[in-house]
Amino acid sequence: MLTKPTNDPRNDFAGRSRDIQRPPIADINALADERTAQGHALTNLGQAVLGLEPPEAAMDQVRRYLDAGGVQGYSPDPGLPEVREAVAAFCRDHKEIDHARADNVMLTCGANQAFVNTMLTLTRPGDEVITFGPGYFDHDFAIRLAGCVNVEVGLPQTGERFRFDIDAVADAVTPRTRVVVLVSPGNPTGAIIDDASLERLTDLCAQRGLWLVSDETYDLLTFPGAHHRSPASLPQAQAQAQDHVVVIGSFSKVFGLAGWRIGYLLGPAWLVEEAIKAQDSVVVCAPVPAQLAALGALGQVDDFARHARTVLLQRRNALLEILDHLPWVTPTVPAGATFTLARLHQDLVDDVALCRDLVIRAGVVTVPGSAFGPRGAGWVRFSFGNLPVDQLQEAGERLRQFDPYASS
Amino acid sequence: MLTKPTNDPRNDFAGRSRDIQRPPIADINALADERTAQGHALTNLGQAVLGLEPPEAAMDQVRRYLDAGGVQGYSPDPGLPEVREAVAAFCRDHKEIDHARADNVMLTCGANQAFVNTMLTLTRPGDEVITFGPGYFDHDFAIRLAGCVNVEVGLPQTGERFRFDIDAVADAVTPRTRVVVLVSPGNPTGAIIDDASLERLTDLCAQRGLWLVSDETYDLLTFPGAHHRSPASLPQAQAQAQDHVVVIGSFSKVFGLAGWRIGYLLGPAWLVEEAIKAQDSVVVCAPVPAQLAALGALGQVDDFARHARTVLLQRRNALLEILDHLPWVTPTVPAGATFTLARLHQDLVDDVALCRDLVIRAGVVTVPGSAFGPRGAGWVRFSFGNLPVDQLQEAGERLRQFDPYASS
Repeated sequence: MLTKPTNDPRNDFAGRSRDIQRPPIADINALADERTAQGHALTNLGQAVLGLEPPEAAMDQVRRYLDAGGVQGYSPDPGLPEVREAVAAFCRDHKEIDHARADNVMLTCGANQAFVNTMLTLTRPGDEVITFGPGYFDHDFAIRLAGCVNVEVGLPQTGERFRFDIDAVADAVTPRTRVVVLVSPGNPTGAIIDDASLERLTDLCAQRGLWLVSDETYDLLTFPGAHHRSPASLPQAQAQAQDHVVVIGSFSKVFGLAGWRIGYLLGPAWLVEEAIKAQDSVVVCAPVPAQLAALGALGQVDDFARHARTVLLQRRNALLEILDHLPWVTPTVPAGATFTLARLHQDLVDDVALCRDLVIRAGVVTVPGSAFGPRGAGWVRFSFGNLPVDQLQEAGERLRQFDPYASS
Repeated sequence: MLTKPTNDPRNDFAGRSRDIQRPPIADINALADERTAQGHALTNLGQAVLGLEPPEAAMDQVRRYLDAGGVQGYSPDPGLPEVREAVAAFCRDHKEIDHARADNVMLTCGANQAFVNTMLTLTRPGDEVITFGPGYFDHDFAIRLAGCVNVEVGLPQTGERFRFDIDAVADAVTPRTRVVVLVSPGNPTGAIIDDASLERLTDLCAQRGLWLVSDETYDLLTFPGAHHRSPASLPQAQAQAQDHVVVIGSFSKVFGLAGWRIGYLLGPAWLVEEAIKAQDSVVVCAPVPAQLAALGALGQVDDFARHARTVLLQRRNALLEILDHLPWVTPTVPAGATFTLARLHQDLVDDVALCRDLVIRAGVVTVPGSAFGPRGAGWVRFSFGNLPVDQLQEAGERLRQFDPYASS
């Protein structure tokens, strides 16, 4: 499709995106599409979405919007008032963020756009942003596209789980640090920060004058024994959350609304007002039909989240059972979210090559750990959220027949 | 709503957005909402949307999507292949961009997000971006949030119309210049660049190694005697467009899909691939229901655009007739788009105060020219797109009774 002559303009391209690798999911999906077009049937353990349809009430809201007519207008930049209020109520009732009110909420085109708004509001070019690694590649992109420096702190592994090392965060703070980004449950690890570490991290940010940006995309998707807690729900944060905590939320994963592009940020009311500058220039407002779909979904959150967690647990256990019996990979046990990060046997050093091999020879799509930063090298992310158990079993059959040491 | 104690965290806020004024439309709308809540009936000449509902085929596509089920997934980052192809066909058939193909197109959450993608891809912090002023404030925001410098070149006025001064652009180019941004029909002027100037500008960019970013949001909304031409449609551009022209398009204004958030960028196929990095981190993909709405709308483009132009011309003429008879303001004649920029009498120096006065004392919402940069001071943007002629007449009655020299 793309030819590259010697006078290829790409050779001269000097824009900021040149320094960033393409999103690996896009590349793996392109390879997968190519194989599918050639007639190969693939099993997709790549995408982190929950493969459930959204709650009925979500689509009912959209149908009512269509039927009522007058569907041409923008909403206010931060969103429709009744939807902002519904998100605030959700944060109070399901995330224990007691201070959440409508004017703390801005609706966005998904959690990524909320993160971009936050970066383009809080930082200046050259600022440092601390993240945990291996971590979410779109955060790395957004930080770098904002002209900032991503300072990655490792997630040490204890047994089958990852830990959040707050001492390492404290050591990484410099006078240029502006923001610390927490993703819990994490992507690609599924790790959840323990309460003591969460309190220490929140205190550290408050004491050092740093913003704590907490991406809670997978908040309701936790497994038995684990509980997601937002830094904005901590007692000290309830007094100080107006100062330094921004929560980022999504309707893509929990509510099956990925394609509708709807998420939110929650922070001090004055910061939400401040973030309107980025909001207006990036998207003006979140898509109105998606705002209404979110409103509908929030009316069924209890039933839907319970169902989602039940289904997810079955899927997680099925995939872990499969991976536990493969000699070339060792899964970690996620406390939440829709995937497991699995370590490759030490003989298998190139996770990118292995993932390409998995597509081509096993017909299984996964994401190479290198996609999640240097600390992801030698790991592979297997998603279980998107497939029912019988399809996971089928993927298991393919994986059992796959010999990673055979040449492709 | 917002209290400001002495230890207000806003006093310490140092993020990049601090340097940018809030979007003025948001402020004027907030004032208007306040007045409406107090029981005042307002007439809105502020918003630049076309107040027409989208074509039926657009909503039919959305209904089919809902009825078919499976509405939870993302699309590929650059959009659904059939919609990218439909946009490419539209660009070939209606914008004379003969080289447009699906892989030249990326679907975005509106034209603004296409512009943000473009800035975050093409520039580096510290780069200069040349724009024409008075100009679109969201471009100014996006340029500055990207860490770049907006170098504004004036639009000289000849009689009732604005001109594009390409000599001034050539003079403004420095070694730090990376991009020139053209908006034609322009916002807030409605000015359309003449063919000779368009060719000179396109050549200038090619010769100096600059990107020409052409925002064509109002492409189909032109008045008799005027014709929109894209730089990507010029014969020389057809050879070189793969090198240096990016077109930005919107479904918000022409197709009544503002609230759905759907637009596109069109450029060299390799640049579209490059822009996937920004696309993935900002929004992942455009909302899928909005992509389908755009697909439906493109099937009715001829009828809809003809209808829209007929309605718009009546509205433009009605508003110009009203403004022509007011002693305190002199409208310019827009060649396209949905508004006129009108110069205040020289006694009226503060356009922001006047626009607040217009809301409070006349019940008419407009946008102060200062919102569009320093060259907009002393002007006011009156939109005619959003209201039928009878409501414009009613606004005229209010404007005739308004005495700008009375104290409020």
